Amino acid sequence: MRFIKMQGLGNDYIFLNCLEGGPERLPELAAALSDRHFGPGADGLICLFPSKRGDFAMRMFNADGSEGEMCGNGIRCLGKLIRDWGLSDRTRLVIETRAGLRLVELLDGTDRERTVRVDMGVPEVGTPLELEAAGRRWRLTPVSMGNPHGVVFLENMDGLDLEMIGSALEKHPAFPGGINVEFVQVSARDRLRMRVWERGSGETLACGTGACAALAAAVSAGRAEPAAQVELPGGLLEVRWDRQSGHMDLTGPAVTVYEGEYPWKTDE
Amino acid sequence: MRFIKMQGLGNDYIFLNCLEGGPERLPELAAALSDRHFGPGADGLICLFPSKRGDFAMRMFNADGSEGEMCGNGIRCLGKLIRDWGLSDRTRLVIETRAGLRLVELLDGTDRERTVRVDMGVPEVGTPLELEAAGRRWRLTPVSMGNPHGVVFLENMDGLDLEMIGSALEKHPAFPGGINVEFVQVSARDRLRMRVWERGSGETLACGTGACAALAAAVSAGRAEPAAQVELPGGLLEVRWDRQSGHMDLTGPAVTVYEGEYPWKTDE
Repeated sequence: MRFIKMQGLGNDYIFLNCLEGGPERLPELAAALSDRHFGPGADGLICLFPSKRGDFAMRMFNADGSEGEMCGNGIRCLGKLIRDWGLSDRTRLVIETRAGLRLVELLDGTDRERTVRVDMGVPEVGTPLELEAAGRRWRLTPVSMGNPHGVVFLENMDGLDLEMIGSALEKHPAFPGGINVEFVQVSARDRLRMRVWERGSGETLACGTGACAALAAAVSAGRAEPAAQVELPGGLLEVRWDRQSGHMDLTGPAVTVYEGEYPWKTDE
Repeated sequence: MRFIKMQGLGNDYIFLNCLEGGPERLPELAAALSDRHFGPGADGLICLFPSKRGDFAMRMFNADGSEGEMCGNGIRCLGKLIRDWGLSDRTRLVIETRAGLRLVELLDGTDRERTVRVDMGVPEVGTPLELEAAGRRWRLTPVSMGNPHGVVFLENMDGLDLEMIGSALEKHPAFPGGINVEFVQVSARDRLRMRVWERGSGETLACGTGACAALAAAVSAGRAEPAAQVELPGGLLEVRWDRQSGHMDLTGPAVTVYEGEYPWKTDE
């Protein structure tokens, strides 16, 4: 089975072309492919399918085989790959996801790396809460990007014990289903520094919905402009919030890492 | 650039055929290939070179680009690969490493997985020491397999805080260069359970020299037979100590994971 690995800010996925029908047992395959020691290794699997509502459809599986709804960095990579595979020469693609239709826009780039923008939809920003976790009080802004986030502003992030504080806030009784937690330092009105603790995954190099949540909370608090750069451990994302439509978009690199051939026994 | 990823007990390497000359900048390439998010991802890179002293030579690079001397699981995979690539039809191969010549023996198997044995040389077992680390006393047996190990026997390994204790013993002032630490539970005279804390890497799924060190310490203490199975988080290894020659050998699976094509700009 041919596959491609790509990454956006170190958020890495294995991609399969399933336009002519995909392999059987996708959740099991996703877990096998994602295993970083016994398999090729990735954060998950993304499959390209035909769509009746959009130009293409994607299905995304996490490393544990569970199916996800959307992934900002993954869908940006998929946009580049559709072009690389010669499946479309359009620079604006509508991709159907389990979270709805998403517009993906291909900007400049090379064979290996291309800048890609994705419309991430409309954030919902809640009222800041005061919470106790890991022995002190935190002020957290709840934001929904389809998935639940909590944004914590810090004056300085150096020395942050992300593992202890992130896991305590992720599982705080105020959020029965758990949340993704963003720690954000406002470096300038158009620049945020951020580290993210993802629900079920721990610290990751980058999180597209988290970067949007961070900017949505910062703008709502009057601390940032609606267009800013978000600096993550895996690199830089540009986030814009169009106050007229209410939509946010996310722009950053989509990079091809390698092509592979994996021996998967399919029942087809 | 074509490559193969293989693993033995989850200890995974990327392999290159450099018989006709290898790419430039191998340390830099090793770090790029080993990166699990921005690259294909592995514990390191192993390159097959011609040898004047043995049938073939291997050079092994860690994920940080530093060159290693030997790797028990890596050289077992290389043995299978030499056969897969059609480079030799012999079942006993002498491979030159920076730690000296190593005899590799191909046993039964399939295209995907083969059992491979490697002669790991002669262990040197020291006198057990009493050490204080992480707030309590530990009895540790120093063993050299070319690289330094410390073996700690436990009645029960459940609930072991490997990260805290392993890192404290790794960096104990008694071992200025650091050591690899094996925690071993003797399940039977021919079966050891083991978890390993590798110097500079932390907990790993398997460690061939560590499995040999564990058996050498157990036999020297009169607690095990000179042939035993060692149960690691990544799987099972068979270790034998030939008391006549003094050599230990290590037998276990070598598995092909996938073939890949990586875009590396070479100056050749």
